[in-house]
Amino acid sequence: MIVIVKQGATKNSIEELKQELRQKGFDIHESKGTTTTILGLVGDTSSLTEDELLTYDAVEAVRRIREPYKLANRNVHPQDTVVEVCGRKIGGGNFQVIAGPCSIESEEQITEVAKDVCASGAGFLRGGAFKPRTSPYSFQGLHGDGLKLLLEAKKATGLPVVTEIMSAAHLDLFEDVDVIQVGARNMQNFELLKVLGKTNKPILLKRGLANTLDELLMSAEYIMAGGNENVILCERGIRTFETSTRNTLDISAIPMLRKKTHLPIIVDPSHAAGIRHMVEPLSMAAIAVGADGLMIEVHNNPSKALCDGPQSLTPQAFDDLMKKINKTVAFFQGN
Amino acid sequence: MIVIVKQGATKNSIEELKQELRQKGFDIHESKGTTTTILGLVGDTSSLTEDELLTYDAVEAVRRIREPYKLANRNVHPQDTVVEVCGRKIGGGNFQVIAGPCSIESEEQITEVAKDVCASGAGFLRGGAFKPRTSPYSFQGLHGDGLKLLLEAKKATGLPVVTEIMSAAHLDLFEDVDVIQVGARNMQNFELLKVLGKTNKPILLKRGLANTLDELLMSAEYIMAGGNENVILCERGIRTFETSTRNTLDISAIPMLRKKTHLPIIVDPSHAAGIRHMVEPLSMAAIAVGADGLMIEVHNNPSKALCDGPQSLTPQAFDDLMKKINKTVAFFQGN
Amino acid sequence: MIVIVKQGATKNSIEELKQELRQKGFDIHESKGTTTTILGLVGDTSSLTEDELLTYDAVEAVRRIREPYKLANRNVHPQDTVVEVCGRKIGGGNFQVIAGPCSIESEEQITEVAKDVCASGAGFLRGGAFKPRTSPYSFQGLHGDGLKLLLEAKKATGLPVVTEIMSAAHLDLFEDVDVIQVGARNMQNFELLKVLGKTNKPILLKRGLANTLDELLMSAEYIMAGGNENVILCERGIRTFETSTRNTLDISAIPMLRKKTHLPIIVDPSHAAGIRHMVEPLSMAAIAVGADGLMIEVHNNPSKALCDGPQSLTPQAFDDLMKKINKTVAFFQGN
Amino acid sequence: MIVIVKQGATKNSIEELKQELRQKGFDIHESKGTTTTILGLVGDTSSLTEDELLTYDAVEAVRRIREPYKLANRNVHPQDTVVEVCGRKIGGGNFQVIAGPCSIESEEQITEVAKDVCASGAGFLRGGAFKPRTSPYSFQGLHGDGLKLLLEAKKATGLPVVTEIMSAAHLDLFEDVDVIQVGARNMQNFELLKVLGKTNKPILLKRGLANTLDELLMSAEYIMAGGNENVILCERGIRTFETSTRNTLDISAIPMLRKKTHLPIIVDPSHAAGIRHMVEPLSMAAIAVGADGLMIEVHNNPSKALCDGPQSLTPQAFDDLMKKINKTVAFFQGN
Repeated sequence: MIVIVKQGATKNSIEELKQELRQKGFDIHESKGTTTTILGLVGDTSSLTEDELLTYDAVEAVRRIREPYKLANRNVHPQDTVVEVCGRKIGGGNFQVIAGPCSIESEEQITEVAKDVCASGAGFLRGGAFKPRTSPYSFQGLHGDGLKLLLEAKKATGLPVVTEIMSAAHLDLFEDVDVIQVGARNMQNFELLKVLGKTNKPILLKRGLANTLDELLMSAEYIMAGGNENVILCERGIRTFETSTRNTLDISAIPMLRKKTHLPIIVDPSHAAGIRHMVEPLSMAAIAVGADGLMIEVHNNPSKALCDGPQSLTPQAFDDLMKKINKTVAFFQGN
Repeated sequence: MIVIVKQGATKNSIEELKQELRQKGFDIHESKGTTTTILGLVGDTSSLTEDELLTYDAVEAVRRIREPYKLANRNVHPQDTVVEVCGRKIGGGNFQVIAGPCSIESEEQITEVAKDVCASGAGFLRGGAFKPRTSPYSFQGLHGDGLKLLLEAKKATGLPVVTEIMSAAHLDLFEDVDVIQVGARNMQNFELLKVLGKTNKPILLKRGLANTLDELLMSAEYIMAGGNENVILCERGIRTFETSTRNTLDISAIPMLRKKTHLPIIVDPSHAAGIRHMVEPLSMAAIAVGADGLMIEVHNNPSKALCDGPQSLTPQAFDDLMKKINKTVAFFQGN
Repeated sequence: MIVIVKQGATKNSIEELKQELRQKGFDIHESKGTTTTILGLVGDTSSLTEDELLTYDAVEAVRRIREPYKLANRNVHPQDTVVEVCGRKIGGGNFQVIAGPCSIESEEQITEVAKDVCASGAGFLRGGAFKPRTSPYSFQGLHGDGLKLLLEAKKATGLPVVTEIMSAAHLDLFEDVDVIQVGARNMQNFELLKVLGKTNKPILLKRGLANTLDELLMSAEYIMAGGNENVILCERGIRTFETSTRNTLDISAIPMLRKKTHLPIIVDPSHAAGIRHMVEPLSMAAIAVGADGLMIEVHNNPSKALCDGPQSLTPQAFDDLMKKINKTVAFFQGN
Repeated sequence: MIVIVKQGATKNSIEELKQELRQKGFDIHESKGTTTTILGLVGDTSSLTEDELLTYDAVEAVRRIREPYKLANRNVHPQDTVVEVCGRKIGGGNFQVIAGPCSIESEEQITEVAKDVCASGAGFLRGGAFKPRTSPYSFQGLHGDGLKLLLEAKKATGLPVVTEIMSAAHLDLFEDVDVIQVGARNMQNFELLKVLGKTNKPILLKRGLANTLDELLMSAEYIMAGGNENVILCERGIRTFETSTRNTLDISAIPMLRKKTHLPIIVDPSHAAGIRHMVEPLSMAAIAVGADGLMIEVHNNPSKALCDGPQSLTPQAFDDLMKKINKTVAFFQGN
């Protein structure tokens, strides 16, 4: 952390600042320029916020040098983390496709889709029982009943399941779920993250609509600091001024996160664009930049879907896509 | 809702679409242009999403005509809502200032600040016991103990209190709290909103960092749909590309929300800018555009604040500001 | 400028870097931490870009300490600049209202509006002869003929005129224009800025839709570096994800720019919101935060305006607004 | 275009509106709902702006149905446009790589880089002689002398050249240039676009930092409306709140533009991220989504580059990348 001292700050105020920083355990390197004095703080600054320093009279500005996340940081943990679920690996060169409907609607629907995506080669089944909908008047999911149907579909296919949690109060219902998803709108629901940090379930953490990569990693850090290091990151599009797509897929996030962290990173092309015909090209792009997996919405009857129909693929379209995904993963892994 | 029919859609697919829409209870007005056919849906479209329509083969695009919120809509409820708390009114021409520290740190701190802001004329005391911090290594608040201290400060001053809830699991602790705040990061924590809709507490709902005004109103609708119509909206800055301020205060939101809704609207200038010297000008701007109140951070020793020190005012600075606020409110109400 | 040295950089690469920086005239202060070495550069860094430093193998990151603008910087020039046009002053406590139609359409229109806004107390007349329109099929302005009509309206009223330039090739036509406006879309048309820096005309420089305050000041610096220090900055709304207003007025920009620069700062509430009923509240907000003036669109027949009709005030509405503006300016200057 | 009539609008005001719209040549389809009346306009609405309609008293809102661009619209011109330069084709399945330094610095530099990228298989040479720099104190390019050096490098290698124009006043200097680039900051420099529309040079039009895809197409329309239909679109990253990359590459823009327009679309991964190690993954992503080409910065000595060094590849790194590009293009074209 670099502290830029205010021009005209009194000697006393600078001395007081330095003394307090030393009491907090930092060594201080001072550099005096013609117009500017800067203080370099040496020590572990991860628990120090810029704000704490900015409150001192003598401080003009603060520049962070080292990232505030530790457990998620590749500097600290250089090797790729591989998350293993029911014998299936994600990360470290292991690519997985998670597929299924946006929301679980009936036994027939989820089981049929599960069998289809399993036959096409998906490694995980997704399906929402708790749905975060902008409107209270929209379908909110089947809740506990939905989770039961999802677990039946798991039995029928052997596919491990991924499903979203919206409140720590529902955690008991997720006992047999394989991967718990935290949705974009809950990325900074810190109380939920803390609770999930105390479980031993793999967590699929989606990036918020307006969150930076460093904030995503700080949210992963919340889970990891609780003891649960099985975190999978998911880029699903951010909000910008562009309106022709629902969100803007930040494809650069994948190589940038790869530098910053050792955690697996997957991409959700269905939510990123919100449009069926873009799922294929965005999936190809995700593989091309080295993502560890994809999360794709599939519905047996998209025009009757209770949620996100316009971005859902039919089982047939998904089957075609899986063939391309497999060939493309093989192509890039061979290069 | 207007449905734009795809060029080249078959007669059959258009007929099927029309039939299903009629089954959902809509009357349909059809307009055929030279290149485009559009269908106007007549009926209550608030439970219909654009997505449901986009899944039909015959549909190219959908344009919403009426807002999807009802209870929060000024069209439906033309008169200003006035929220009353312990005899103090917000909205409908009643202006209130909520002041206090970012986080409750000790009995001495909260009581001292409470007495100071009360003496300066604040109408409500704020103070956080549950703090949403980006980093798990930052101070997280005193939780239940903090709420106790806050209620003691209420006793000592008579000021009703406003404090943030971060999880429905903590609701019992908020029994004696006067106004429950939902923070920006939880604006779309729909499970929390639903629980708060079942309480009879006034809710102060902050706009999310990247949420539109219509989304803010849909979140208010979640609370109101549960039966609790005492919702106060709060603009606290949105995220943009500008980095010299922490957030960008969307001052236009206040007159725009005024048109859209009957709910009271307040402004938080402390979080919007994140910088002490901007609290005064942004407070003046908020009054000038007709906000119903302000929420301002005050700390008895900002340089020792455990949270948000750089944006906190000293009690003396707050006292000076309150004099200006009172004069300015009087000036604009007299015009 | 602070240079953060890469972990694991070789001694040689660090030495080479230091040597080259010394050759460029900088003194270097080195601080070695446990994991990080930083170099502080002492000297004038305004011509040095972060990029130049990032190209060195030994450099991990660069943090700028001092702003890269000099002539526009309040640190260098602490007193407010007052721009004087035909005896009218803007800045340093002098408030001005610039009013008129979006585009000049006919002699009758511009002269009538000019007389009206003059009678209401506007200090300057605005009117566009060259119009930057998104579509090539929209009205593009009357060009040279429009400027002639504008100058006739000036004669008829005595109001100095402000009008937008879109190409350096048109500069000759602007000889009798009092203030030349650079529109948001040309804020980084650097060739145009350089040409205007060689004139002695006051320049009204609008902030681009997605430009930071520092970029706005760097564009002002382009004009000032050419010798023309009569620059007036204008905040006119930035682009965000919010769609209910055309742009988002960044009201915080005014107090923040006030700290950063000595140049006068005005606000254009008409373009910021794009909606007539928001012009008054946004004007009040601009005065409340200490803007040096306002730029307001007025049209004698908004429903027939060839451009920006929905945000134009009628002369009568402008007259009412001017009364409020005058009272509000007096109120805030008296406080 | 759909016009939503204000609730409570008088019969007279609606009649007047309809009459004027009929006079403008539109047929009108009227739909009366329980609370809302809408008017559908039938006819060519490309020269009609939403604003013109919003000025009428009777109009509450306007929704556009058809895009306002015609010449660039794939609906009007279904087949891919192929731009041909010196016998090299871009678009319609023809992939091209444009490579070279950010700025032309010396004869030795540009010629050396030209030979290198030519040997590696680039189809075009890029190099800037007029450089849009944020700071007036940064290197601004060699101007006319730079263009001469670029043309010498063309002679030495046979590579057609691409270089940026910053002012219509410089057009004469571009006589022998093969492709004229319009930079992101000039995307809405409409006077420049109009001048380029009168030339017969292929134009490489970069998307602005905060411009929508429809605005990009409207800028292409400016050039095409002048008679020059040889426009190549370029996605180069947009501005968002994310700060770890210089810009956010909008990879979805490529498949979305492909639907909207018949013009070729290329990607500039060097500017999108601003970081060398991201050029390769972003290039792969661009190919994966079906871009028609890439524009890549190469410098023979990046650490001495006068501009954009951190994102420039060495000739050796570019050679490695070209091999991957060729294999990847072949892979995706074979699928």
